[in-house]
Amino acid sequence: MNTKIVVAGPRGKMGAEAIKMITNEPDFQLVACIDRKTAENGVDAHSHLNVPSFEDAEECFTEIETDIFVDLTVPDVGYVHTKAALEQNIRPVIGTTGFTDEQLNELSTLAWEKKIGCIIAPNFAIGAVLMMKFSKMAAKYFSDVDIIEKHHDNKLDAPSGSAIKTAELIKDRRTSKKQGHPNEKEVLPGARGADFDGMKIHSVRLPGLVAHQEVLFGSPGQTLSIKHDSYNRDSFMEGIKLSIKEVQNLEELVYGLENIL
Amino acid sequence: MNTKIVVAGPRGKMGAEAIKMITNEPDFQLVACIDRKTAENGVDAHSHLNVPSFEDAEECFTEIETDIFVDLTVPDVGYVHTKAALEQNIRPVIGTTGFTDEQLNELSTLAWEKKIGCIIAPNFAIGAVLMMKFSKMAAKYFSDVDIIEKHHDNKLDAPSGSAIKTAELIKDRRTSKKQGHPNEKEVLPGARGADFDGMKIHSVRLPGLVAHQEVLFGSPGQTLSIKHDSYNRDSFMEGIKLSIKEVQNLEELVYGLENIL
Amino acid sequence: MNTKIVVAGPRGKMGAEAIKMITNEPDFQLVACIDRKTAENGVDAHSHLNVPSFEDAEECFTEIETDIFVDLTVPDVGYVHTKAALEQNIRPVIGTTGFTDEQLNELSTLAWEKKIGCIIAPNFAIGAVLMMKFSKMAAKYFSDVDIIEKHHDNKLDAPSGSAIKTAELIKDRRTSKKQGHPNEKEVLPGARGADFDGMKIHSVRLPGLVAHQEVLFGSPGQTLSIKHDSYNRDSFMEGIKLSIKEVQNLEELVYGLENIL
Amino acid sequence: MNTKIVVAGPRGKMGAEAIKMITNEPDFQLVACIDRKTAENGVDAHSHLNVPSFEDAEECFTEIETDIFVDLTVPDVGYVHTKAALEQNIRPVIGTTGFTDEQLNELSTLAWEKKIGCIIAPNFAIGAVLMMKFSKMAAKYFSDVDIIEKHHDNKLDAPSGSAIKTAELIKDRRTSKKQGHPNEKEVLPGARGADFDGMKIHSVRLPGLVAHQEVLFGSPGQTLSIKHDSYNRDSFMEGIKLSIKEVQNLEELVYGLENIL
Repeated sequence: MNTKIVVAGPRGKMGAEAIKMITNEPDFQLVACIDRKTAENGVDAHSHLNVPSFEDAEECFTEIETDIFVDLTVPDVGYVHTKAALEQNIRPVIGTTGFTDEQLNELSTLAWEKKIGCIIAPNFAIGAVLMMKFSKMAAKYFSDVDIIEKHHDNKLDAPSGSAIKTAELIKDRRTSKKQGHPNEKEVLPGARGADFDGMKIHSVRLPGLVAHQEVLFGSPGQTLSIKHDSYNRDSFMEGIKLSIKEVQNLEELVYGLENIL
Repeated sequence: MNTKIVVAGPRGKMGAEAIKMITNEPDFQLVACIDRKTAENGVDAHSHLNVPSFEDAEECFTEIETDIFVDLTVPDVGYVHTKAALEQNIRPVIGTTGFTDEQLNELSTLAWEKKIGCIIAPNFAIGAVLMMKFSKMAAKYFSDVDIIEKHHDNKLDAPSGSAIKTAELIKDRRTSKKQGHPNEKEVLPGARGADFDGMKIHSVRLPGLVAHQEVLFGSPGQTLSIKHDSYNRDSFMEGIKLSIKEVQNLEELVYGLENIL
Repeated sequence: MNTKIVVAGPRGKMGAEAIKMITNEPDFQLVACIDRKTAENGVDAHSHLNVPSFEDAEECFTEIETDIFVDLTVPDVGYVHTKAALEQNIRPVIGTTGFTDEQLNELSTLAWEKKIGCIIAPNFAIGAVLMMKFSKMAAKYFSDVDIIEKHHDNKLDAPSGSAIKTAELIKDRRTSKKQGHPNEKEVLPGARGADFDGMKIHSVRLPGLVAHQEVLFGSPGQTLSIKHDSYNRDSFMEGIKLSIKEVQNLEELVYGLENIL
Repeated sequence: MNTKIVVAGPRGKMGAEAIKMITNEPDFQLVACIDRKTAENGVDAHSHLNVPSFEDAEECFTEIETDIFVDLTVPDVGYVHTKAALEQNIRPVIGTTGFTDEQLNELSTLAWEKKIGCIIAPNFAIGAVLMMKFSKMAAKYFSDVDIIEKHHDNKLDAPSGSAIKTAELIKDRRTSKKQGHPNEKEVLPGARGADFDGMKIHSVRLPGLVAHQEVLFGSPGQTLSIKHDSYNRDSFMEGIKLSIKEVQNLEELVYGLENIL
């Protein structure tokens, strides 16, 4: 039997990819979509999808029988949608990031009371999540580590959010240490990268690059490298697919793909 | 209080490095060594170590009070040494490889009865062992994987033993699959590498290289790479050091460093 | 003063990208396009380009004043176009591959007689062409080399055409040698890759990958790696842009981007 | 006929390796060595070499017939040796670094007058020299480049001398440019590395690493990477070997291995 799925945010880049993935997956079935605007200039904006579309989540969940609700919108909207889904015993898979702690707590409590699964994940790229998980595990045995992340030169922030998240996870397990030679000297300032609890983060920005991160551990005689390369949005679809399957085995809210891998 | 350690095989390359490591470690204390030849032309071969040396393991363990026995010899000798150590309630850390299943079973039973820890590890390079462990874990989520191992051109066998071991571990978890395009064609035979359950292994041999292995997973839009580079024998010393510490918390025989990481 | 440019093949993937590049470049000006079909169902197929379009190259070159002709069509058509351009003293930049030796000779003679530049290039990715050029240069000093090329798993042929081309260039300079240990043994057949004059080529195919090639040279104590990663079609546009500039300084036909780099 | 060679500095690490290389090379013949101390406690310090040893270079070059003089000592001594060799029409291959401009000018003039070859090279690793040469060539076509150099954590200076030398060579050819997004922001200071004429240099320091440098060029849709890994001192021997051969074809002083490659 097919898994019935409702998608919110069908016109966004991620939403459009998710719908393509669901349509191509033999066990999945798109049954409706939710959009803040279901018609444009009086013309149905989703007619090509051949499923009903709704502006109101509650109305959708009442009228349409579904197993899973996938949300790829914005925090405020996503929160309302997710709450409505849980109240109707529909399992949410949420890629929307930026919920407040209060919102997360409320959703978590609701999932707990209803005893139904809910997955909220800021990053659906399984490879990126595994890279972080393995880095955390390796940090127990290697106290020397540099993170080298490489992105296209349109990126504004350095280091990337993923690099900082990785460093935080490593810090949980690593024996704290100021790396490098105690008397090392930067002939050119910045050469040794950014410092995070004594470990180093380097941000490369070049045209041509997409999104890449290497975590490089060193100890006498050896190095261990864990590297993720993201080439395009397809990388997130495998994570959404996996989450749609796994959320059906859960009875509570799980935050972060790493906790189901 | 210091951990007292006896080393067998002090004149071998690994043994000599192990003694150097033990001597440099503040919590460790070398208390004796065991060698098939304690004197050369009537001159004590180990006088520079400033500890007693023995040709007979049983005699050593009777006369010298020790916590740990480290063996870096050959299988037949190592087996006798390990048995003698266990019988005297001394915890063995064994880097000697090539024990028979019968020998391993006997040593395992003995450790079990005595309720004392014993670690036997064919590979003490923590990075290599983690690479295999992470590869096994990742294989659950990625069914497409190539192993690329690179060694100096004096190596006789291809693929390396480590690459085959890694492939076996991956096979345990991976959804079996013949990789590549169903109609792919080797214009030059061998281009696609060796086949192992549908995954591919490539062996690079070049002067200058030492010992390197990359496990490269791919799925739509992303790749995940786990890579170990071994530069010299120092890489094993961290594993021996860790084993000396961990074996004191064990009450049975553990085979393979991966099982204590 | 702007460089005036006519493009043939404006509806193809490469042609469309080239037009976008020309439009964005301040010194370049698109003045016309040539297409086998200028109207679809009676509607001008190129109205969005705001330049005249022609089905016949000769007619285009007679009516429109232009400096450069860029062809991104198919060999038979491209050949006719290029000949017509040269005869009108217009400098061609041709990305169409597959001309016969006879066609190339004729075009070369024509350019020579007219004393005007013409560039025909099977590969406009500057990085890929430099990788091959540097590999050829390095081969003089390193007789041990492995080529590792990685592509998405929809690719049918292994090794890739670029890998074979690179191997041929290396062979021109390398001291011929059967690499690896004389007694090396493939435990699993194919592990050591494809043999090309004693050097080795390895083809990795995985979903997620795009188009990547590494040329790895080794000699005692060191390795030198030259690596090109191609992420998308944009990589060709820089080469076309460079060719449009360089062809204006030439007085003959040049085949291959490597000969102007 | 064999090339006759005198080596100065036979007890240093480089000198000892050079003597081993010369002894193993069928066309080379060690005929003498020069050392500031030829005897230790009255015992010949070089008896194992089976060639005469001298404390005075002039005396050596008068008494011993030789083709080539290899110097691996210190600047002041090396300068005197090199001058003495040139005056006796012996071709020098000098790995000693740190000569003053005045000394280099004098030696250059002397070689010119004598019309005999002389090679002085601060770096004999052919791979490292090619990496720099190729980087300089590529910089003409790619104005975006990051240098990532990785060394063991005992290294004091960052960036390495080689990285700065590479950046200087690139600067000669690169269109000057401040890389990265104009509004980019370092969330953690140092993340974007050291700035050198708008390009970026990153220094990784970890135990286990030896000496590695990658020069990474990017342009839309592609990256080009040139990488050198140095594992041990053997890497210099190929360069000395090549220099011994090439110096015999020269009639002047050449500074830097790049000028004979």
